Amino acid sequence: MKIGIYGYGNLGRGVESAMKQHKDCELVGIFTRRAPESLHTVSSASVYSADRITEFKDKIDVLIICGGSATDLPVMTPMLAKDFNVIDSFDTHAKIPEHFETVDKAAREGGHTALISAGWDPGLFSIMRVYSEAVLPIGKDYTFWGRGVSQGHSDAIRRIEGVVDARQYTVPVESAVSAVRSGECPELTTREKHKRECYVVAEEGADLSRIEKEIKEMPNYFADYDTTVTFITLDELRKNHAGLPHGGSVMRNGQSGFENENTHTVEFSLKLDSNPEFTASVLVAYARAIYRMSCRGITGCKTVLDIAPGDLSQMSAEELRAHLL
Amino acid sequence: MKIGIYGYGNLGRGVESAMKQHKDCELVGIFTRRAPESLHTVSSASVYSADRITEFKDKIDVLIICGGSATDLPVMTPMLAKDFNVIDSFDTHAKIPEHFETVDKAAREGGHTALISAGWDPGLFSIMRVYSEAVLPIGKDYTFWGRGVSQGHSDAIRRIEGVVDARQYTVPVESAVSAVRSGECPELTTREKHKRECYVVAEEGADLSRIEKEIKEMPNYFADYDTTVTFITLDELRKNHAGLPHGGSVMRNGQSGFENENTHTVEFSLKLDSNPEFTASVLVAYARAIYRMSCRGITGCKTVLDIAPGDLSQMSAEELRAHLL
Repeated sequence: MKIGIYGYGNLGRGVESAMKQHKDCELVGIFTRRAPESLHTVSSASVYSADRITEFKDKIDVLIICGGSATDLPVMTPMLAKDFNVIDSFDTHAKIPEHFETVDKAAREGGHTALISAGWDPGLFSIMRVYSEAVLPIGKDYTFWGRGVSQGHSDAIRRIEGVVDARQYTVPVESAVSAVRSGECPELTTREKHKRECYVVAEEGADLSRIEKEIKEMPNYFADYDTTVTFITLDELRKNHAGLPHGGSVMRNGQSGFENENTHTVEFSLKLDSNPEFTASVLVAYARAIYRMSCRGITGCKTVLDIAPGDLSQMSAEELRAHLL
Repeated sequence: MKIGIYGYGNLGRGVESAMKQHKDCELVGIFTRRAPESLHTVSSASVYSADRITEFKDKIDVLIICGGSATDLPVMTPMLAKDFNVIDSFDTHAKIPEHFETVDKAAREGGHTALISAGWDPGLFSIMRVYSEAVLPIGKDYTFWGRGVSQGHSDAIRRIEGVVDARQYTVPVESAVSAVRSGECPELTTREKHKRECYVVAEEGADLSRIEKEIKEMPNYFADYDTTVTFITLDELRKNHAGLPHGGSVMRNGQSGFENENTHTVEFSLKLDSNPEFTASVLVAYARAIYRMSCRGITGCKTVLDIAPGDLSQMSAEELRAHLL
């Protein structure tokens, strides 16, 4: 399976590093909007200007698009789906139906297969919501995120005047997680589900109380949460907050029995040292599934909900039945 | 979707109770090898002799076969797959490839769709092993069962002379679960993973120390485990051990990064008040998927690894993308 990486940030680098674990994959090249010679890749992969991508039309089986959901992917994925089988990690939940339509149209026009919104949420977490809802139609589900770094919230803090750098951790409220895990179905407000921890490096002489107030009152991002702000030095940030860990849990409590007298708790949880590397690993597994569907003549846009688990594996159906079923 | 239940033990009754939660299902009838008039069904479902099943050839979309894996299903599922779309919960892991072949042949001959080994292990646990292995090829997985009642082990105790009744709980060793959950990849022996708790009602005057010895030394079932035996009265058994709870966890610790420097922990766990009712709920969701595949003209034998998550849900693909993805 010949893979191309389109975009070389944290996620693209994660895909590059995942290549050696997926023995059936060959990395054809990394495509960047920056000057190719300016890229410091870790493997010996070839680097090309993104402008040259159409030259590789028949040389790549699946193109893994590693762009941002805000402005990159809504343009890139439909554009590239005309010429390639593609996969992305589009994660703006509210805009998935719209993104699906534009990618589906482009992929069908080009006779290609596309998959959007792969990763862990949307992605593996979505799958777990569907499995548990299908099996336990009467019940209530919960998604908790963290403890982990939210890039979006960290960026929001960085935009405040006087802030040099910042790292924001999303933290699930332990008492809420425990209540759900014990089979209860509480109604939880935003504040009762997650709290936000901010580690902020301020400019020398900056008004710290003003910065703290601006963070805590920021609408959408922080105002609805219990937020703590801790000022640290740039050295501390680099030393203690360099990684991008994340994780979380999807849980569902559902009932069964003639009188709904029995309760079942289904939980799927992830604890990730590196959010971008894990997301990249999911993308590579789904690239395999998309390639197989493409070989079967299936075209158009798919999501993780349309893919059978067996299609993700390097093992054959016989091996899977014998060893993992 | 018109459903038939073939076999009316704990599992068949679980399917019967699940029917009201799956709004797209209609229960055509329950088929039993016992005298139909002797069955006390909970709903108002029609009961027929199993001999009459072929009369219902065109009246049932999916037949859910609720028999035992030891002797029933290896015969029943291939036999019925000739005339019906069928699903079973065959759970003898080592014999799945063989069962698959005979069911596949019969289903293809009859132009029907079959699915074997649905439930939670094999079933949802198998799916989780495949997802986590596909995403994290370098790593190690663990399956822990319990705390829950093992019917097979309870039956084994009942066969000992002087035993009136018994209930055996499989219990995961908490320190092993914690080690794996914290990201370690220990090599664990059988004894280090699970222990076995037995609650036994003995005949009056029976030699309790002989019974305890026979249990603890029973090969395959107990000899390789730390086993505790507690003698209780029949009243206590009925009062405190009437249910069939079960559960467990599938966990995988895997690495990513250019030097495999990052570790990720994936965990899926179930806590079930009623093992047969939850298994039945899984069967009904997969019956829906099998019916849909059959409508698409797909024939032969499938497993849970061949089914896309979206096919299990009562929701449409559009609804799933908008609400659960």
